[in-house]
Amino acid sequence: MRPDGGPLGPIDEATGLEAIDREECLLLLSREYVGRLALVDHDRPSIFPVNYRLDGQRIVIRTAAGTKLAAAGTGRWGAFEVDFSDRMAHQGWSVVASGPVAEITNHDEISHLETLQLRPWAGGRDRWIVLIIEELSGRRLKAGHHEPR
Amino acid sequence: MRPDGGPLGPIDEATGLEAIDREECLLLLSREYVGRLALVDHDRPSIFPVNYRLDGQRIVIRTAAGTKLAAAGTGRWGAFEVDFSDRMAHQGWSVVASGPVAEITNHDEISHLETLQLRPWAGGRDRWIVLIIEELSGRRLKAGHHEPR
Repeated sequence: MRPDGGPLGPIDEATGLEAIDREECLLLLSREYVGRLALVDHDRPSIFPVNYRLDGQRIVIRTAAGTKLAAAGTGRWGAFEVDFSDRMAHQGWSVVASGPVAEITNHDEISHLETLQLRPWAGGRDRWIVLIIEELSGRRLKAGHHEPR
Repeated sequence: MRPDGGPLGPIDEATGLEAIDREECLLLLSREYVGRLALVDHDRPSIFPVNYRLDGQRIVIRTAAGTKLAAAGTGRWGAFEVDFSDRMAHQGWSVVASGPVAEITNHDEISHLETLQLRPWAGGRDRWIVLIIEELSGRRLKAGHHEPR
């Protein structure tokens, strides 16, 4: 699930996690298809599993009108997370992107988004939500770096 | 990954998703080991991949001092999400639990938590965070219920 052969990134002393650089974060985001979007709704966090596509520097999500996501999604700051874990090997990685969330309603833009072959997590698909990536970070856990039990 | 044979739950008309009842949500939470905790930090959502265990009606997470999770985690409302998806079959489910997040510092309680065989996502493991489940919901997507492309 991850590119191999690169040099190790910086290791976080508190956690033993290796930082993933921006380029590889984008590569990982481009390869996955299910993530989770976190939003703030009335001072509380909401979290939504979504199918998505990376389109340049933004995360594209398709949802149905009438969903909580459609209601909560636009004009706010969002955090979007993708991860992979291998329980047996105790290896894994995660990428978190955050930035403003907006709805796309422009027809030309929607025509472009429709080329992304994005299937919504469920049901109808008449709303296009994007998270514009302003912050991006990733962490990789390797078995050898883990403090043994 | 999911229990079979039960009757279908209510279907959400907006999304085509089947609601998973509380009992099965807890069963699914008890079987998985990686989830994501969303918190609000300075009016913005943060999202953390974590290893966890279900302990009764709470989600138990172990983290290291000095992590963002340790700093942001306690005394707030959290949302915790677990999901499973099968891309080829376009099937999947998700469970979201939410409630107050607290740190456990009582030695007797920690002695109990240590029996859970919980491995932290990474590194040190000297902080115990729990999310007490006050709200719990789950959704299942079945291939047959999905609007075809």
